[in-house]
Amino acid sequence: MRVYDLIWKKRQGQALTADEIRYLINGYVRGDIPDYQMSAWCMAVFFQGMSFEEATALTLAMVESGDTVDLSSIPGIKVDKHSTGGVGDKTSLVVLPLVAAAGVPVAKMSGRGLGHTGGTLDKLESIPGFSVAVSRERFLKQAAEIGIVLAGQTADLVPADKKLYALRDLTATIESIPLIAGSIVSKKLASGADAVVLDVKYGDGAFMKNLEDARSLARTMVEIGNRSGRHFRALLTSMEQPLGLAIGNSLEVMEAIETLQGKGPADLTELSLKLGGMMVVMAGLADGLEAGEARVRQVLSSGDALAKFAQLVEAQGGNPEVIQDFSLLPQAGVVRSVWAETEGWVERIDCRELGLIAMRLGAGRNRLEDRIHPEVGLRFFPKIGTYLHRGDMIAEIYARSEADAAAAEEQLRTCIHLAAQPVQPEPLIKEII
Amino acid sequence: MRVYDLIWKKRQGQALTADEIRYLINGYVRGDIPDYQMSAWCMAVFFQGMSFEEATALTLAMVESGDTVDLSSIPGIKVDKHSTGGVGDKTSLVVLPLVAAAGVPVAKMSGRGLGHTGGTLDKLESIPGFSVAVSRERFLKQAAEIGIVLAGQTADLVPADKKLYALRDLTATIESIPLIAGSIVSKKLASGADAVVLDVKYGDGAFMKNLEDARSLARTMVEIGNRSGRHFRALLTSMEQPLGLAIGNSLEVMEAIETLQGKGPADLTELSLKLGGMMVVMAGLADGLEAGEARVRQVLSSGDALAKFAQLVEAQGGNPEVIQDFSLLPQAGVVRSVWAETEGWVERIDCRELGLIAMRLGAGRNRLEDRIHPEVGLRFFPKIGTYLHRGDMIAEIYARSEADAAAAEEQLRTCIHLAAQPVQPEPLIKEII
Repeated sequence: MRVYDLIWKKRQGQALTADEIRYLINGYVRGDIPDYQMSAWCMAVFFQGMSFEEATALTLAMVESGDTVDLSSIPGIKVDKHSTGGVGDKTSLVVLPLVAAAGVPVAKMSGRGLGHTGGTLDKLESIPGFSVAVSRERFLKQAAEIGIVLAGQTADLVPADKKLYALRDLTATIESIPLIAGSIVSKKLASGADAVVLDVKYGDGAFMKNLEDARSLARTMVEIGNRSGRHFRALLTSMEQPLGLAIGNSLEVMEAIETLQGKGPADLTELSLKLGGMMVVMAGLADGLEAGEARVRQVLSSGDALAKFAQLVEAQGGNPEVIQDFSLLPQAGVVRSVWAETEGWVERIDCRELGLIAMRLGAGRNRLEDRIHPEVGLRFFPKIGTYLHRGDMIAEIYARSEADAAAAEEQLRTCIHLAAQPVQPEPLIKEII
Repeated sequence: MRVYDLIWKKRQGQALTADEIRYLINGYVRGDIPDYQMSAWCMAVFFQGMSFEEATALTLAMVESGDTVDLSSIPGIKVDKHSTGGVGDKTSLVVLPLVAAAGVPVAKMSGRGLGHTGGTLDKLESIPGFSVAVSRERFLKQAAEIGIVLAGQTADLVPADKKLYALRDLTATIESIPLIAGSIVSKKLASGADAVVLDVKYGDGAFMKNLEDARSLARTMVEIGNRSGRHFRALLTSMEQPLGLAIGNSLEVMEAIETLQGKGPADLTELSLKLGGMMVVMAGLADGLEAGEARVRQVLSSGDALAKFAQLVEAQGGNPEVIQDFSLLPQAGVVRSVWAETEGWVERIDCRELGLIAMRLGAGRNRLEDRIHPEVGLRFFPKIGTYLHRGDMIAEIYARSEADAAAAEEQLRTCIHLAAQPVQPEPLIKEII
């Protein structure tokens, strides 16, 4: 087998065999295949795509490149959840306690935020004392004991993805659906869950800007997952505006707790119940989405989900009192309210830019090594389709200085686009795959 | 400027500016831009192509990467000729003495053969004593004195092409028309001629398998050349069968001499007169192609062109007697005649395979470091459209051993495809661009 021929074959739009794909990935991870051949191959994949068979072979070869987590010691069907990332997306903080309270074992590895999107680990770490550095042994023990654990990904899962992603990031080959799908699904497979619900977001604040690409990515990931002997489903959800109101780490933790208290924003509550319902069904604990959703709605109103969240916080070193005392969370030095100076129907929101404003305030990272300030961020109130009156509150800015707050105010005022006519918003949940 | 953005831009089908292309090429030659980014960019170019403006900027940036030859000390309009390569293509050996005898100054750098195609330098070196290692000073002096010089390309012309070609060769990005055009034209521009006639071949024995690709390559090269302030024209010619009869170095020298004696094969003679006529016109020595062709026809029948060839041989260390005594050329130890065992109209010839048979006999190189045996090769007689009778001679094989000759016979018998009905051959010269 010659690498040249495999590049050529893909360039001509032909499908590679599983053996050929394994040869490429193994050779690349071992260092036998140079970066310059791999990047040419990635660009050929960008243009020619991959069949589901190829994408599955790629994903499995990537999984084989490193360790895998064995969750079989935890009883029951382990169900994981993955979001492709968005602005204000704190769904995991709500959904995982919900389903854990409903009896679904949750043993989840999460990621950090980058650019305009946040990460679950960063959000949880805004709770003083909360640690995401959990040994493999304690990870399994906590999952078995309280039914929920959330940790950082260990370094030895899917090294092929780390190497390949770094190369794609330098060669403009990130935006290939089979390569994205392989990257995401390989990590989910290596993390050991039996079933996975994917929240695939589309729109200005998402990685995928349009519905078609998001649908294609969702279908590819579901196919790969199911062909690999796991059970995958996906929701396609809109990211045309922030999910909920809060953007920023401790602000999002507060909003997640409020949602678990039954008084969260409607969109976040709706999506959390839908995702949670699916997970309960996939865990075999309910028949059909309606029954699943009813089950999680019940643990929400009973307070069991909130108690499960407190249990998680305590198990990982945080103070569980946080669920009734937000003053235990880091507080911003400067809080500035912003009021509308014009009025009209909210037609469009620069969602990605709002994520970047929060990042610049210190809530996120521009580079992986940047430090996060957990207390800063925004609460952004306008929703597409509502009428904004002059003098309505647009946002609260949580900043480290007046200068930061002033800059953020100026920037976020440009993010709201008003119309003279009523506007019909996109449904939050567009499709179930 | 970031390389990532330039890869991305090309991937999206946008045109790069001349500055952006220069940044890429300069950075790559200096070693600032890594191979893995350049190969991804080349693959993006393969899929998205380049405008004439971009291809011109690429070519000029490549020329600027190294030395250029200044031919201004030689009086007159210097006209060069380039063939994209084929089987039995000894046209340069005929055309250059023709036009030099007609008064066109010829100061040409030629290349070596690789794979199924031969190279002018290898052919000339089959004349004992003939040297293509000519210093820059002697090169200019000989051109000024006798009006013709043929030398190997010096190492310092277009280093960008050497580096880029080696990368493309490993990453399946050779077959991109603007990259091929840039590679060829940059070397022509650096070699200093004022005008260039391109012989762009298509068909089984050519680099370009079909007419459309060859036409596109020809147009791209002519555009680049003219936009660079030189005068370029091109012929599109068929390479569905060998040009002339001889394939192999000393055999081709003999056939070229016979053609200069006025008794060469019809196809080789026709193409040489057409190319020569164009060159005479481009040198400003005739008005219109008909007059140009008449001029070279005259120096052919007068014997001046043959005398010019002898003068060239003598000037570069060979014995000029070779033009009337072929025994001065290396002779093969084994000569085997092959006769037809079937009959019919010659419909198709595996032209590339004939080139490879000659290469395997020792007439060419599989790798650049392979040694050439000047005496071996084929004379292959069938032409598409003629009737082959049982017992007609198909070929003479010139080999180093009986075993080699037997293998070549077996292989070449499979290269002739006969039909029961008459066949209309393609015209040799398809278009003038």
